[in-house]
Amino acid sequence: MSEILQQLAQVLEQRKLEPTEKSYVAGLYAKGLDTILKKIGEEAAETIIAGKGGDKQQIIYETADLWFHCMVLLASQDLSPDDVLAELQRRFGLSGIEEKSKRKS
Amino acid sequence: MSEILQQLAQVLEQRKLEPTEKSYVAGLYAKGLDTILKKIGEEAAETIIAGKGGDKQQIIYETADLWFHCMVLLASQDLSPDDVLAELQRRFGLSGIEEKSKRKS
Amino acid sequence: MSEILQQLAQVLEQRKLEPTEKSYVAGLYAKGLDTILKKIGEEAAETIIAGKGGDKQQIIYETADLWFHCMVLLASQDLSPDDVLAELQRRFGLSGIEEKSKRKS
Amino acid sequence: MSEILQQLAQVLEQRKLEPTEKSYVAGLYAKGLDTILKKIGEEAAETIIAGKGGDKQQIIYETADLWFHCMVLLASQDLSPDDVLAELQRRFGLSGIEEKSKRKS
Repeated sequence: MSEILQQLAQVLEQRKLEPTEKSYVAGLYAKGLDTILKKIGEEAAETIIAGKGGDKQQIIYETADLWFHCMVLLASQDLSPDDVLAELQRRFGLSGIEEKSKRKS
Repeated sequence: MSEILQQLAQVLEQRKLEPTEKSYVAGLYAKGLDTILKKIGEEAAETIIAGKGGDKQQIIYETADLWFHCMVLLASQDLSPDDVLAELQRRFGLSGIEEKSKRKS
Repeated sequence: MSEILQQLAQVLEQRKLEPTEKSYVAGLYAKGLDTILKKIGEEAAETIIAGKGGDKQQIIYETADLWFHCMVLLASQDLSPDDVLAELQRRFGLSGIEEKSKRKS
Repeated sequence: MSEILQQLAQVLEQRKLEPTEKSYVAGLYAKGLDTILKKIGEEAAETIIAGKGGDKQQIIYETADLWFHCMVLLASQDLSPDDVLAELQRRFGLSGIEEKSKRKS
């Protein structure tokens, strides 16, 4: 299970080389950054709506959509999910025991 | 790297049992669902602003914040990041070769 | 200029009585609350992107889109823009001299 | 009622000249564009949460918050609510009879 993000990141890298008409993701890259960012806003709204609605399957579905489009953003900027995971690791510590994050107010 | 989400999920579960004043996450649980959802909206906005700004470190930082608060939502609903990863796996296939997602219009 | 919101609210009320296929707004009502709320999230994201982009025409355009979809939400709940204006008036005082709002932290 | 936005816009212009510590709005200006845009994302999320919750007073309150922070954005860019109202007027026609907007897909 834990390698899914890395596998998906590889798919997203491959999509950069492909013609637009063949893939939803290639189409997003072609439309550009604003379209990708707009999708993140849209999926965040849907995650909030799902969370408020309380349907667990819907929450999972919309969170997957949100993370997916975040990964498209990362790929579009030549970043990877491992960069995000490393940041989470940095905040919470290797052992996972101590929450080290100094949260912004 | 790939186990970070699972480790973080364990931390988030532990926080459910802890007094509010000791932890940012316990405070979020105590404030309730609306506060957690509001944070997702806030962090999505910050991810969009960072994406538009183009600073890679900021994009990583804000995406980590967004994913983190999604994980708090998942934990608050007794869901786990593995549920989200399984949904991504289902859409993209085990082999990662074929994008099977039938995107909503 | 200052009566535009009230005129638009009347249009939005009329749309409640019309068949879906004739009007974008009637279509939104038919699709239901979640679709209207999702549009608010989408247009807020576009306003943020426009604001970060710095194009004044784009900021005006996207803010109009955002306010428009808020007015569809209001109409769908049998509320009017005057309810929102009255709330703004209440916070800032009739004379507009004193900001009375006690902002949430 | 219909002059509230214009009165509020005047207040927002005055705040540009005032020291930060005296006013919430002056503080927003001082923190800069990203902070104002973040607030729009935050208030949009709260409007969505309120809409999904169904409490009419909460919907009015959060929509007022959202419009208010949009007006701070407009003021920060030397724009006014009349620019937004004119755009809505342009889309819907002076008479308010015909929805002329050619919606983006």
